[in-house]
Amino acid sequence: MTTYRAPVRDMNFLLDDVLKIDRLNNLPGFSEAPRDVRNAILSEAARLSEEVLHPLNARGDIDGCTRNSDATVSVPKGFREAFAQLGEGGWIGLSAPTAYGGQGLPNTLSLAVGEMFSSANMALEMFSGLTRGAVAALLVHGSEEQKQRYIPKMLSGQWAGTMNLTEPHSGTDLGMMRTKAAEQGDGSYRITGTKIFISGGEQDMTENIVHLVLARIEGAPAGIKGISLFVVPKRLVNEDGSLGDKNAVSCGSIEHKMGIHGNPTCVLNYEAAIGWLVGRENKGMEAMFVMMNGARMGTGLQALSQSEIAYQNAANYAKERLQGRAIGPAAYPDKPADPIIVHPDVRRTLQGIRAFNEAARALVLFSTLRSDVARRSDDPAVIEAADDYLGLLTPVIKGVLTDKGFASAVSAQQMYGGHGYIVETGAEQFVRDARITMLYEGANGIQALDLVARKLPRHNGRAIRAFLDEMDRFIEENAGQTSLAATMSALRDASSDLKNATASLTQFAMKDPNEAIAGSTDYMHLLGLVALGYMWAMMIKAAQEKIAVGDTSDYLTAKVSTGAFFLDRILPETALHLRRIRAGGKNIIDLPAEAF
Amino acid sequence: MTTYRAPVRDMNFLLDDVLKIDRLNNLPGFSEAPRDVRNAILSEAARLSEEVLHPLNARGDIDGCTRNSDATVSVPKGFREAFAQLGEGGWIGLSAPTAYGGQGLPNTLSLAVGEMFSSANMALEMFSGLTRGAVAALLVHGSEEQKQRYIPKMLSGQWAGTMNLTEPHSGTDLGMMRTKAAEQGDGSYRITGTKIFISGGEQDMTENIVHLVLARIEGAPAGIKGISLFVVPKRLVNEDGSLGDKNAVSCGSIEHKMGIHGNPTCVLNYEAAIGWLVGRENKGMEAMFVMMNGARMGTGLQALSQSEIAYQNAANYAKERLQGRAIGPAAYPDKPADPIIVHPDVRRTLQGIRAFNEAARALVLFSTLRSDVARRSDDPAVIEAADDYLGLLTPVIKGVLTDKGFASAVSAQQMYGGHGYIVETGAEQFVRDARITMLYEGANGIQALDLVARKLPRHNGRAIRAFLDEMDRFIEENAGQTSLAATMSALRDASSDLKNATASLTQFAMKDPNEAIAGSTDYMHLLGLVALGYMWAMMIKAAQEKIAVGDTSDYLTAKVSTGAFFLDRILPETALHLRRIRAGGKNIIDLPAEAF
Repeated sequence: MTTYRAPVRDMNFLLDDVLKIDRLNNLPGFSEAPRDVRNAILSEAARLSEEVLHPLNARGDIDGCTRNSDATVSVPKGFREAFAQLGEGGWIGLSAPTAYGGQGLPNTLSLAVGEMFSSANMALEMFSGLTRGAVAALLVHGSEEQKQRYIPKMLSGQWAGTMNLTEPHSGTDLGMMRTKAAEQGDGSYRITGTKIFISGGEQDMTENIVHLVLARIEGAPAGIKGISLFVVPKRLVNEDGSLGDKNAVSCGSIEHKMGIHGNPTCVLNYEAAIGWLVGRENKGMEAMFVMMNGARMGTGLQALSQSEIAYQNAANYAKERLQGRAIGPAAYPDKPADPIIVHPDVRRTLQGIRAFNEAARALVLFSTLRSDVARRSDDPAVIEAADDYLGLLTPVIKGVLTDKGFASAVSAQQMYGGHGYIVETGAEQFVRDARITMLYEGANGIQALDLVARKLPRHNGRAIRAFLDEMDRFIEENAGQTSLAATMSALRDASSDLKNATASLTQFAMKDPNEAIAGSTDYMHLLGLVALGYMWAMMIKAAQEKIAVGDTSDYLTAKVSTGAFFLDRILPETALHLRRIRAGGKNIIDLPAEAF
Repeated sequence: MTTYRAPVRDMNFLLDDVLKIDRLNNLPGFSEAPRDVRNAILSEAARLSEEVLHPLNARGDIDGCTRNSDATVSVPKGFREAFAQLGEGGWIGLSAPTAYGGQGLPNTLSLAVGEMFSSANMALEMFSGLTRGAVAALLVHGSEEQKQRYIPKMLSGQWAGTMNLTEPHSGTDLGMMRTKAAEQGDGSYRITGTKIFISGGEQDMTENIVHLVLARIEGAPAGIKGISLFVVPKRLVNEDGSLGDKNAVSCGSIEHKMGIHGNPTCVLNYEAAIGWLVGRENKGMEAMFVMMNGARMGTGLQALSQSEIAYQNAANYAKERLQGRAIGPAAYPDKPADPIIVHPDVRRTLQGIRAFNEAARALVLFSTLRSDVARRSDDPAVIEAADDYLGLLTPVIKGVLTDKGFASAVSAQQMYGGHGYIVETGAEQFVRDARITMLYEGANGIQALDLVARKLPRHNGRAIRAFLDEMDRFIEENAGQTSLAATMSALRDASSDLKNATASLTQFAMKDPNEAIAGSTDYMHLLGLVALGYMWAMMIKAAQEKIAVGDTSDYLTAKVSTGAFFLDRILPETALHLRRIRAGGKNIIDLPAEAF
């Protein structure tokens, strides 16, 4: 039996005191969510998470989804009603434009809420996340008619959305895609092919499903330059918005998988299904990137969400489980044994998880806030800086948060000893659910490749230079304060490792790009550590400022202590990554394939 | 669909060229297994693993075990016949004394075979491993009559054995145990209580099960000083060795768990079951330690076994999966895409797994050989040195091999992208099965505590000093050789980190033991890295010697390259562990429990 308590306090601290989001109250969307409104929204999301979504989580894992003989798919009991609540409550469209039925609030707030929903029930929240992703692509690339037709019903939860990219022989390499689109002359196309790994591809929760499908128009160029995006509703939509005939798309099977059992992963067969072009011919990849960037940030958030709930339950267990005695005097001599929280190694483990969780949460909100601000700006410099930052950090957030979030869920499971292996304990579900985040939306090796081979060299390294400059300025501004000296010194060391690593990769790349790419995963983690360290430095500073004016809550004391733990024990991993990056491609590149 | 190819070549290299086991052919047991016999045994074990055991592995996971309404437990299809083959072939008793039906061969050979069987089918091999553990305890502590009665039928696979330690409220803290033993006056006892987490506690594979059970004799002292060991057969055994009545022990339920589904984890209810004391009253813990030490080594081996088969399948997939192109010229321009093995990050990942696997295999065999030699020696110095070494290294092998073996299985799963999450691919089973190894036989935090709080200070640090001296001598003997200079330099750095960490812990311990224990897991990993580095240095040396005399096989070239990869990229982790150890208990010990 697991429980969940949404970290509303931590989110408020981040929004109010670290990001100081109220300074943006002059911006549209932000103006509608001042502090008290934000807190009310977060509190209501917390209630939903704790009381409605989480109680369905374990059952959803055990029962899973069923594909019935008529090719319909049943989701776990209770999911339909819970999803309807998310739609009716406006949660799916929290940050979508009001013109299409959204709430128009900052995306930053939507991601805070998304963390809660995903902690509480990741499989269920995936339906919302994919629907939001499909809405995002339609908003950017769809026609006005498409927007009007689909988006309001998707935001209300009456309909859901999916992303259809992968085919059996074509995962990362989308250029190998075979699904075909044949133009009908009436503005519609007939889509034919097989897509796999379609999360929520079929279900009995919503009255319609809006599939966004990548396909190749007959005669289009080979490779990714010939791929277009189509909207293919499960049921056709009449002119008046009512539902028409069933479209020729069906679920061939659902996958047996390691986790996220509450969300069906479907094989979808398109047999001359009717679809409409979204955006321009052969520009499907551009449209897809809109969904993919959001999805990558969301995937990092999912990993954090599992690490957070795994932490909470492990910490509760450690405080309750009586076993053995503290070294030195018994902590609870009146009990038959001490709770295992007395042991330094248990505390070390829990601190390690928490030190990651709190910084990861900060990084997601900090990064999303940049895009929120840029989206509301007409200053090209602001927009460019935000694009650079998000281009650089999105693969890092996806890759590092999922690697570390999964590792944290494993560490949390470790607190239970053998009991952690038992399904009913619940800790192992968090591990299995978290595991997917390292694999989908581009396996983490692909994120590292994207970072080092594309994002880093773009515009002659403008993005990484801006990031390093920002860090330097931050350190310089704060290094003079005695209470922040140790923090800034640790961040300076890490940042210096990042500079050296960047220089090293640049040198390697001039000789042989593969020498640089041999260090790509280490570089991704090094950059991630620096970004998380930056978040800790900001959080420590904000906490100290509140303590200095008399707020002596245990929350703030623990915050400073957890931050110091991160800087002492986790941030120094940067030196190891630098060392590995400098080793280059030795003993990697030259081996014949047969040697493996 | 997964496959398995037993690493016979690598095992022969270790036994023949690294450990030079033929120098021991004057010892009993070793004399019966010269090179050609060893190779024949390993080859036959390989055949069994590949053709009999592995084909049952995925099915065993999917079907799992069933507790029937009459409290019997059915194991997966084919397990009964396969286990019978293991017994009939003499595999269970490979290193057991010939006097009780064993083969009398070195345990080193038995562990090499055990790795294969466990790679092929970990859940099935657990039945053998636990039977061997129960035999080991009976051999040391049982009466001659008990040995004659139980051991031959256990080695032949007609009967199986189990270990019964854990109770619901009593895991690590065995002193809290409640199971009672009441003396009957006829030499027998009546055992009453509930044991949990009993692997293979009930099954329909063997005609009898020999439970070794820890219980408290009425009136015994409190805590672990009042615990005795009993043998409690599932069916009573008549004087003539035939089977008598069913004993009063029954399976109350089997656990739903994350993996090892092919092996039932039972709740066993003892309701005045008839049992007999093994060894002396209140000395049950001593007897249990015999089983536990073997089981800890075996658990490290299990983790290696899953890492090995995970590696093999991931490497095969990477060579077959066509997706994207190499950076630079296409590697296979005639194919629609290059296999993903062309990518440096894929190779880095695979090299990392292999660099662990090969050193872990060496460490298990190197360590077991020490105990094999000591067991055959009458020199007290040899016995003491081996005891010191194994006391020190057993928790390290358990803790480090399972942490790294699991992480390696996760890395291997990563090679498949989204396909790695699908049950039918098979990679996720290796991850789930490997996961238990970090949790059972003492969760890894307990191993670290055992190492730092008990093994390290014992006899004023005699064991760690001997280990460091051995390393120094080895480095000194070989540092003069140009071809080994880089290897010895890397090992010297790591060994120096270990010396500094040991000094640091000693200083902390004088102030407050908890300050030292805050670094226990880091110390365990630091020691493990040095031990694995030592193995690599020996393997590189042996490979170079063979290359120098004209053996230019790809196997040896890859061995040297993989070793260099370990020394370059993995061994330097020692510096990070040292840094963390030096941080002591800051931000760990002083936090109130409520802060977590």
